[in-house]
Amino acid sequence: MSVTISNFTDMKFSSRVLSEAVNTFSRLPGIGKKTALRTMLYLAQNNKQLARDLVVALQEIVAKLGTCERCHNLSDGPICEVCLDANRDKKVICVVGGARDVMAIEETDQFRGMYHVLGGVISPIDGIGPEELHIDTLLQRVEEGEVSEIIMAINPTIEGETTIYYLTKLLKEKDVRVSVLARGISFGGELEYADELTLGKSILARTTYSISED
Amino acid sequence: MSVTISNFTDMKFSSRVLSEAVNTFSRLPGIGKKTALRTMLYLAQNNKQLARDLVVALQEIVAKLGTCERCHNLSDGPICEVCLDANRDKKVICVVGGARDVMAIEETDQFRGMYHVLGGVISPIDGIGPEELHIDTLLQRVEEGEVSEIIMAINPTIEGETTIYYLTKLLKEKDVRVSVLARGISFGGELEYADELTLGKSILARTTYSISED
Repeated sequence: MSVTISNFTDMKFSSRVLSEAVNTFSRLPGIGKKTALRTMLYLAQNNKQLARDLVVALQEIVAKLGTCERCHNLSDGPICEVCLDANRDKKVICVVGGARDVMAIEETDQFRGMYHVLGGVISPIDGIGPEELHIDTLLQRVEEGEVSEIIMAINPTIEGETTIYYLTKLLKEKDVRVSVLARGISFGGELEYADELTLGKSILARTTYSISED
Repeated sequence: MSVTISNFTDMKFSSRVLSEAVNTFSRLPGIGKKTALRTMLYLAQNNKQLARDLVVALQEIVAKLGTCERCHNLSDGPICEVCLDANRDKKVICVVGGARDVMAIEETDQFRGMYHVLGGVISPIDGIGPEELHIDTLLQRVEEGEVSEIIMAINPTIEGETTIYYLTKLLKEKDVRVSVLARGISFGGELEYADELTLGKSILARTTYSISED
């Protein structure tokens, strides 16, 4: 006796509209056919208003969401809100790999300078060389004069470190300080599970402990 | 010293369009803000065509996807494909809770009759009484005469069993056979992990084992 385990891709839909919506939705990263079906059934049967709202949101993404001409961060207009903000420090540029990194740094509330989004890091294995990244516009911004410091807030991976090295070499001739994010153990982390490189670096770069009196 | 763990809901977006899209997308069941952000960034930065395709798919769900007037299954037109199919056996109606159950049964390729989707099961705790379900149209279909058997393919939960009992009582006067799905252990299941009720039922309802000679 043989038991055939049904293949979900052969699923029989009584509705062509539903079938096509499930196929389209499951093209999103991390969304499988079962999740797509559950989601589309929810929209069709329980919440057509949400489907309408999603249509508007997606149409706006297609029509309006672009990148800032100056820093390449995500922006609704030609120049992003950070670049337009007169209260931010134009002398410091924080260089990041992607728009997601800008969000993470903005969330800390610790930085009031400008950004420059490279659009990735140098990664020969993925076919990403320096010419694929927004490096020329970074150099241009530095050459325009106002900038005194470049903070390399790039992921500390091999590709990230390569990118930092490459950019630092390019910026060597310019009159600008180059800095990197402090490396060390995380708040809430456990020494036991910290990697050797980070732990070693955190010992060498130890800071004086002082108790603030207040 | 106090460490503040950042709250994602306060996330700072440089784009109003992105922020609104993330909020809308995270209203979908099972989608959190982080997944919504990752998905919207993917659409904005890597795949605007998929965003356009999703717009069309969702617009079609809103405009075209409805339920069959006869069996209440999901349908693109007023009458669904199963009800329109002349090759299906009009004498047998399989009663299910929802459209998802129709798909599961269609997938088995073992049933060539008609369906009737109740739109749920009787569940007083959720405020679902018989009048919330498509029971009147089921009785109407039976009264029209052609039907000889009603298969109760309703989830074997307490609510499902209550619904089966209620419907069977209603159908008692009519000239129609009422049947339920066989209960027993699953293919590939292990006796050790089967619940007592199912295992007990599967002993009582044991079938003769015969070896087919071919």
